[in-house]
Order: sequence, then C-alpha cells, then structure tokens
Amino acid sequence: MSQKIINTDDLAFLLYEMLDIERFTQFPRYEDHSRDTFDAAIELALKVASETFAPHNRLCDEDEPRFENGKVVIRPEVSEALAVLRDTGLMAASQDYERGGMQLPAAVAQTCIGLIKGANVSTQAYAGLTIAACNLIMAHGTDEQKQRYAEPMMAGRFFGTMCLTEPHAGSSLGDIKSRAIPQDDGTYRISGNKIFISAGDHELSENIVHLVLAKLPDAPPGAKGISLFIVPKFLVNDDGSLGERNDVQLAGLIHKMGYRGTTSTMLNFGEKGGAVGYLVGEPHNGLAGMFHMMNEARIGVGLGSVMLGYTGYLHALEYARERTQGRGLAERDPATPMIPLVQHADIRRLLLAQKAFVEGGLSLCLFSSTLVDEKKHAPDAAAREEAAGLLDLLTPIVKSWPSQFCLEANSLAIQVHGGYGYTREYPVEQFYRDNRLNPIHEGTHGIQGQDLLGRKVSMAGGRFYQSLLTRIRATLSECANVAELKANAELLSTALSTVEGITDALQAMKKSDPDRALANAYLYMECFGHLVVGWLWLRQAQAALRGLQNGGERPASFYQGKLNACDYFLRYELPKPLALAEVLRSADRTTLDMPLDCF
Amino acid sequence: MSQKIINTDDLAFLLYEMLDIERFTQFPRYEDHSRDTFDAAIELALKVASETFAPHNRLCDEDEPRFENGKVVIRPEVSEALAVLRDTGLMAASQDYERGGMQLPAAVAQTCIGLIKGANVSTQAYAGLTIAACNLIMAHGTDEQKQRYAEPMMAGRFFGTMCLTEPHAGSSLGDIKSRAIPQDDGTYRISGNKIFISAGDHELSENIVHLVLAKLPDAPPGAKGISLFIVPKFLVNDDGSLGERNDVQLAGLIHKMGYRGTTSTMLNFGEKGGAVGYLVGEPHNGLAGMFHMMNEARIGVGLGSVMLGYTGYLHALEYARERTQGRGLAERDPATPMIPLVQHADIRRLLLAQKAFVEGGLSLCLFSSTLVDEKKHAPDAAAREEAAGLLDLLTPIVKSWPSQFCLEANSLAIQVHGGYGYTREYPVEQFYRDNRLNPIHEGTHGIQGQDLLGRKVSMAGGRFYQSLLTRIRATLSECANVAELKANAELLSTALSTVEGITDALQAMKKSDPDRALANAYLYMECFGHLVVGWLWLRQAQAALRGLQNGGERPASFYQGKLNACDYFLRYELPKPLALAEVLRSADRTTLDMPLDCF
Repeated sequence: MSQKIINTDDLAFLLYEMLDIERFTQFPRYEDHSRDTFDAAIELALKVASETFAPHNRLCDEDEPRFENGKVVIRPEVSEALAVLRDTGLMAASQDYERGGMQLPAAVAQTCIGLIKGANVSTQAYAGLTIAACNLIMAHGTDEQKQRYAEPMMAGRFFGTMCLTEPHAGSSLGDIKSRAIPQDDGTYRISGNKIFISAGDHELSENIVHLVLAKLPDAPPGAKGISLFIVPKFLVNDDGSLGERNDVQLAGLIHKMGYRGTTSTMLNFGEKGGAVGYLVGEPHNGLAGMFHMMNEARIGVGLGSVMLGYTGYLHALEYARERTQGRGLAERDPATPMIPLVQHADIRRLLLAQKAFVEGGLSLCLFSSTLVDEKKHAPDAAAREEAAGLLDLLTPIVKSWPSQFCLEANSLAIQVHGGYGYTREYPVEQFYRDNRLNPIHEGTHGIQGQDLLGRKVSMAGGRFYQSLLTRIRATLSECANVAELKANAELLSTALSTVEGITDALQAMKKSDPDRALANAYLYMECFGHLVVGWLWLRQAQAALRGLQNGGERPASFYQGKLNACDYFLRYELPKPLALAEVLRSADRTTLDMPLDCF
Repeated sequence: MSQKIINTDDLAFLLYEMLDIERFTQFPRYEDHSRDTFDAAIELALKVASETFAPHNRLCDEDEPRFENGKVVIRPEVSEALAVLRDTGLMAASQDYERGGMQLPAAVAQTCIGLIKGANVSTQAYAGLTIAACNLIMAHGTDEQKQRYAEPMMAGRFFGTMCLTEPHAGSSLGDIKSRAIPQDDGTYRISGNKIFISAGDHELSENIVHLVLAKLPDAPPGAKGISLFIVPKFLVNDDGSLGERNDVQLAGLIHKMGYRGTTSTMLNFGEKGGAVGYLVGEPHNGLAGMFHMMNEARIGVGLGSVMLGYTGYLHALEYARERTQGRGLAERDPATPMIPLVQHADIRRLLLAQKAFVEGGLSLCLFSSTLVDEKKHAPDAAAREEAAGLLDLLTPIVKSWPSQFCLEANSLAIQVHGGYGYTREYPVEQFYRDNRLNPIHEGTHGIQGQDLLGRKVSMAGGRFYQSLLTRIRATLSECANVAELKANAELLSTALSTVEGITDALQAMKKSDPDRALANAYLYMECFGHLVVGWLWLRQAQAALRGLQNGGERPASFYQGKLNACDYFLRYELPKPLALAEVLRSADRTTLDMPLDCF
C-alpha cells in the first residue's frame, strides 16, 4: 500500500463486519445515507490525509511554530491543509444538513477524523479543537451564539480553543483564579492567565473562539463555582463581520517534546482592563458545558493515540518485510542469504503486539463512536439511555488505554527498525514523541483511573457497569461452543470474574475508606481496559470466523490474522495487568503507606 | 540537595552496606586503597559531573553536532568537560598505577563513570568509548599497540570508537562486507562502510582510534571470519607524533531522537585506496576481542540507563514535593489549601515505581561491577572463575533490564510533572529521549534474550546459572525467619520456583526444537531479570534492616524507605512478567505460528 495510515481492509472489517454500522441507515437522521456514502466520505478523508496532511508532518516537527513580531508564524502547509479540510466539507462531517454539514454518523465522521490524525496529528488538532468547541456551543449556547460563533467554526472560518489550565493549578480546575466581572450590557470582563492552550494563537483562521473557564464574583469555592465564557480573539459584529481586537494576549509559546506542529500557548486575558466575554449556559455551571467538550476531547485523544500507533505499526511492518537481516536459529550455514526481519519470531512478537494494540484500540474507538450515534439518534429511548451510560463508563478507557498501549506500540515500531528507528531520518521516532502527550492532556492516567473507579463504575447504582458485563457475558456464551473461539472465551471469562471480584471488593471499601479503595485506581483501570479490549478482540474474532466460513469480502489471510491477533492478545497481554489481582482485591496499602520522608 | 544526579546516601548504602566493597582493600591490587580513597574519587566525580557535565546537557541537545566544511562542529563545553575528566585522572580511574591510573576497583570506577553519565550521557560517551577501546587494546593488543594507542587514550589525548555495524547488516555481524587486504609490511588496507559509529569523527582529541571489524581475503563465511583492526584517523609515528591522515572519511552525521550530543556517523574506509589498519589478535578471531569491548559496553549501557532513570526520579521527587495541586479524596472543602503532589497516592505510586526501578537497577550494575573486581583480582581462583561466569550470565540482564525499566522510570517522571514534563523547558523529556536508545544499541532486547536463554543459562553445563540460584536460595534462607522480610522472601521464592520450572522446560526443548524454545526468549529474560532484581531488592532490605536495628550511618527514614521500596517491587512489579509463566513453560507458539501474510 502506498499510504501507511490505515489498513483499509481492517477499517471496513471493523465498521461493517464487526460493528455493522450500516444499521444506522435505519435511524431517521441517517436515512439518506448508505454504505456508499459512508465509503465515499472515508475515501475522501483518506485521500486528504495521505496527500495533504501526511506530507508536512515531519516538516512541522522540524520547523515548529515561532513567535515573531507579536505573531505566531506557522509553516504555510498547515493553512493549506486546513483549507482543504474546510473546502471538502470534512470539518462539518457530522453536522446537520441545514447548517451545511454532511449529517454523517459519528462512527463515520470519527473515522474520517482519525485518518487525518494518523497522517498529521498536529495539524489536525486545529480542526479537532474547533469541531469540539463548535459542538459545545451547539449544545449549550444560545441561538445567537450558535449563529455568531459556531456556524463560522463549522465553515472553518473561525477556529476554537479550550482554555482550562492555569499555571498554578493544572488538573485541579476548582482552584482556577481567572475572574469574570459582569457588565451592565450583559457581557463580562475576563481576566487571568491560562497555560498549555493548544492552538491558542495563530493566523490560520479569521478569528479564534476561546472557551474560557473563569469565576464570577459571587462564585462558591471549588469546582461548583466555575463558569464558562466565549472570549473571541476579535469581537464579532452583529452582521458577522469582525470588530475590535479583544484583550487576549499571547504571553509565549511552550516548546514540546512532540506534537510540535500544534502551538501550545500561554495566554493572558484582561491585561489591558478585561477581555470581553459571553456567558455560556448557567452561571457557576461551566464545568457541565466544558465536560461536554472534554469528553469529546478525551475520545479524540484516544483516537489520535490509536492512529499514531497504527501508522507506526504499518511503517514497522513494511520495514520488517523489506529489510533482510540474519538467519533462522536452526540455520548453521552463514553463506545462505539473509532473511527478512519478519521471519524472526521475536520480530513477529513485536509486530503482533503492535497489531493487537492498534487494531484493538481502533475497535475500542469505533465501538465508542457507535455509542455516540446510538445515544443521540437510536429510535428507542432505552437504547439511547444505555448507550449514553456505556459511553460515560467507557470514556476513561477510551482516553487512557490507547494512550498507554498504542504509545507502547510506537516504542515497539522503533524497536523493529533497530538503530534506524531512533533516527529522525525515519518517521517512527516522531510518532513516539507525538504520542507521549496523550497520557497527560485532557486528564492524566491517574485522573482517568479515579474517574473510572471513583465515579463511573458506580454511577446510576452501577447500572451501566452491569450493562457492560451483560454484553461481555453474551459474547462469552456465543463463543462457548465454538471450537475456534472457546479457549479464548475461557481466558476472557476468567478475567471477567477477576475484575468483578476486584470491583465488588473496592466498591464495598469505597464507603468506609475511599483513600484506600482508590489508591490503586490506575491499576484497576489497566485491568478494566484489558477486559474491555479483550472482549472486543473476541468480537473481532467472531466476525473474522464468520468471514472465513462464509467467504467474506476480505482475503482468508486477513481473517486468519485477526484470529491469531486475538490469540496473542488474550494469551500474552490480558494476563499482565491481572497479575496484580491480589494487590487490587486486598486494596494493598503499599503506596498509601509510603512515608513522605522515606523516598 | 542541589545536584539531582544521585542520592549520596543511597550510593554509600549500596557500596558499603549492601555490597561491602571495603573488602576489596584486602585484594593485593587494591591494598593501598581505603574507604577514604574510594570516597574521595566518588566525591571528585560527583563534583565534575554536577559542575562541569550537567550544565551543558541541554545545550548539546538543542545545538547538536553539525557537519560543516568537512569537519564536525561540537559546542566548546564538550571539549572543556572532557579535558577536566582527563586532567582529574578520572579517564584512567581503574588503570594500573604504572600507566598513570588510579588502580581503583571497578565498583568505584564504574560509580564514577555512572555519575558522569547521569549528568550528561552524551558527553560522557566520548570518554566511555575511549576507555572501552583502550581496555580492549590492553587485553588483546601487542605491547607496541598498547604503547602507541592505548596509553594516549588513557591520557585522554586520543579517543576511541567501535566500528561494527554496516548499513545492510545491522546486528548480523557475520554478514559484514568490509575487507582487509594484507600488505607486505604486515599492515592491512581496510575498505568498507560503517554506520551508527558513535564519536566517529570530531575535533575533541588529537586522534581517533577506530576499532574496526573487517574480513580477510581467506576468511570463512559468517561470524568465524571476522578480524579486528586498529585504524587510526591519523597514522602514529614511531615517536608517538601524528603522521598522515588515514583514508577514513566522514560520509555524514545521523540525527537522533535523543543522545544528540554524541555524534553518530557514517564512515567510509578506503575510499581513496585503502585505510591503513593493524590487526589486533589472531586473524578471523576478531569477535572475541570485540566482545571484550562489547561486554563492557553492554554493562555501560545498563549503567547509563540506570543513571538517566535515577536523575529523572530525583527531578520528579523534587517537583512532587514542591508543587501543590488538588486535595485528598476525603477532603470535601475546596477552600482548604492545595496539597503537595507527593501526598496523592497515585503520585506516590509513580515515585515508588521509579525508586524501585532506579535503585534496583543501580544495585544490579554495582553488583556486576563487584563481579568484575572479583573475576580479575580475587585471591582465590575458584572465586575468580565463579565471578567471571556470573558476570557473563548476568550481562544480558545488566544491559537490558535498566534499558526497559529505567526508561519506564523516565516516562513516569514525565507523568509526575504533568504537562510541564512534556515540555523542553523541563529536563525530564530529554532523559526519556536519551534513554530510548538503550534498548537498541549494543544488541537489542531481542538479541539479549537469545543470548541469555540460548547461550548463557546453559553455558558450562548450566553451572553459573546454578551458582546464581544457590546465591538466591542462600538469601531466601537468611530471610525465612526474619519477621520483617519473611513475606517478601516468600514472594521471591515463588518467583524462583517459577523461573526454574520455565528454564528446565525450555532447556529440554532447546535440543529438539530450538526455534520454538527461543521464540519467547525476550519474555523469559523479563522474568529472569525481575527475579535477579527482586533478589537484589531483598538483599537491600536485609542491609536496611541491619541499618535500622544497629543504628546505621544513615537516617532511619532512609532505611525505612528501602524496606517500603522492596515491598513495592516484590508486590507490584515482580508478578507482572511472571503472569506469562504458562506461555513460557508451554513454549507457546502464537508468535511463531503467525503466517507472514496475515499481518
């Protein structure tokens, strides 16, 4: 294949054979769509990704944005690529027809976004943040705000940001110091300092719509006193034209290990007296709105991480097939020709691990995007509610599992390349550096673990956690009597029982001793994530077996590879986090008890 | 502490309380030494490391060596620092008095080198390669070669390289194409292309002594036909003065993800007719000599990896103590002050994991360096032989375990820093990039795994493997009745039995089906490495308990921290690789059986 962003067989397999997204054409919202229109959008996105986004991925790493003469200078390819994204309509792929969108299912729209991310995660970020900010305004803004800010964002004329973090507070949002003073005209004057604001300043769009968290004068302390504001870089006149420059100053650029093409900025609001801001939603209830965007961003982080892992895997696979080195262990004659790397068992292990991580991660992200479609547009209210709950439950997994294991895949892709992989003359080292951001932003691993165990598993009385278990059990019973799947179903069944036991023990302890119950929350999330991905691998294996037996659309070798990768994941990867089952079940106190002066 | 290279309490604890290196003053070679002279050398090295090497570590990352007008341009701080290393005598710390060395034990000399690596691994590499090349010539060269090349290297006037890898062959040394043609005067004319030659060209020293692998015209195929040559950049006259430029051309620099301060070069030998080379050792037996250097380099890789992990840990620890963020889970009042990061259980997990990895890794490297002293200078021949065998057995572990887990420590150090850790404004991201080389060079993880399982465990009829087990069992029986250590001894005992069972099964299979027996060699090495480091952690715990009970030299909190870190390693880390015990014992064929067209 000439592009190394995606295996198109795999993508079609996941979307149509495993997840059956054609069923969404039965939903009224998508009734004008068909598999043909889905495929046309995906093909377009892949073409844009490979022809327009991939070629400047390394360029923007080497020649990162600079702050010169008060402006951010970014290579011209970025602006050109984003214009193509806008002109093809891909910026608004999932939006309503009436607002100029394609009204595609989230499963298809997310696939398109993912392809762009795999080609160039840094340039895509400008569009991704814009789409997420736009969706927030569409969900929580007034009609006027939708028209004035969201519609130009869908059209790609305005870009967006999310301004949460402040230098002193990081993840602790309740402690932000930015202030919003109400004005007689109903607007607010915003002041404060924000840090790590991606796409915080640039010349790529006519305007930048900052979504800013700040506190009103009468705000209660903590997270319940946070409000959300639209603060545009340029004020927008009633006729939609741009007005004065708002009081938002670029204080500096931050230089990152990777993801260098996306500017990361420090922004000062209100240095000259107060930036004009417009309240979104209710006062003091800004986190609800921001979490709309944040949850979307978390899924986007997971998807980006998968796609970086995926492209690294395809690069490593091509290299392993083409590069000859050494001989088999049993070959004693050094005069025989060298064999391709892929023939060495240890290299196959490195490749199988990558395949298991990235194809497993992609199945996780695409499954989640089907939940987005079901929660919004399923005809049945109970189905909508269950999908919404499952998506909430799985969001920390979708964010963190790929950020851990598809980053690991990037490291393995370097390893397949040997010394070449460590050089900047090959692309895999950049994927690894780019991907290292993903365990940090939009909530660290530690925060995701606490979200999962502290809130999500027990929300609604544990109802959605039970829904997930029910679905896993259904798959297990489908596989129990299938000769090819039975052994893997047994491995998954054991893991399921272990996770259930741990969950029950920790939920019971949460009431009496929350610190102890949550001390190992991150390790719990590792087990939970592997259980979910193991389940999805078993579902992939089911679909692959159907394909093999019924002469599916793809070659037999493709389906066979899925069965082997399922074997690999369940035998070689699933047991690892579960090795700490006893530590988890007993709520081991080792980390909690470490005295602070003993490090 | 102002330097963040080492915890000096930890270093003294490992050297004197755990490993008792004062006993080496009983060896005739070290009889003039005392703990005072050891400490003086270590203090000197730490001063040079923190004052001379650390300050330009980031500078050389940002401003890496360039190829300009036919020369390699390197920042002046590098040359200045190496001059200090030379002038203080640290370049020749372990060499004989009569050759101008300090005749220090390897345990002390390696400690000194480690401190320099922790401060600036890239600049140290120029010295490290020189010391290793010098040692090779001292072991395998003629008296004339020692005098003409090795002595100026000890004095820091000449630097050295190892020229193994060629563009087409990588790790497969038997397939190198470089040629050596014998001349009537007893010299050779060398021609061929080498790649990834660290320190392959520069203006830092008067001369560069390349140690080059090449094949003679009558060489048998494969690894048994490789010869070793000294190829100086400038020929050396009989009086030691420099003569003509030799036919060694810099073909280009390679640009790496990290370790940027060390030039990585492509060198062409013999473009103009043949570089003059001098045979070292016997014809066709060059690998024996090169493995002398390679084994030293492998231990050096492990040590460098540990020290990068160690400095990252100390940076993360300081950050976690100073940075306030959020509140305890049970604290419901958002108006209370934020607490330091180190008070969060998940941050303590990240710090304990780093402590367990880097202090465990340091104990592994220092234990290995005591084996170097014992193998060379122990008065008893049997002790020398056992130490040599144990060192051979452990070399793949010393190389690969830190490269995996101290790299992981660097990732965790980034995680403790949150978004700041991902920026180039903080040092931890560089440690992570620098350390990513270590799983690759001097033999990848895969190659180390095959070395361990394919050769080392069974060498001499498994005698040294049995010696190791005997030592582990001795520690276990010492701990069996000690209340504070008993539980951890039981965990280690279980791991020991598991590894023994796996080893027996795979050794039996190696005879009938070597491909299958070795297919999971890397995973075997993970188990073996954790067993060894778990054992060393138990020995650290023994020493710490003695310190606590007998009022040792260090504060009680220090000893208590060691006991907690031992708990952490044995409970949280040791079980992970062993989760694949069944995969290993059964010599699972999953990776071996993956058809090549199914990826």
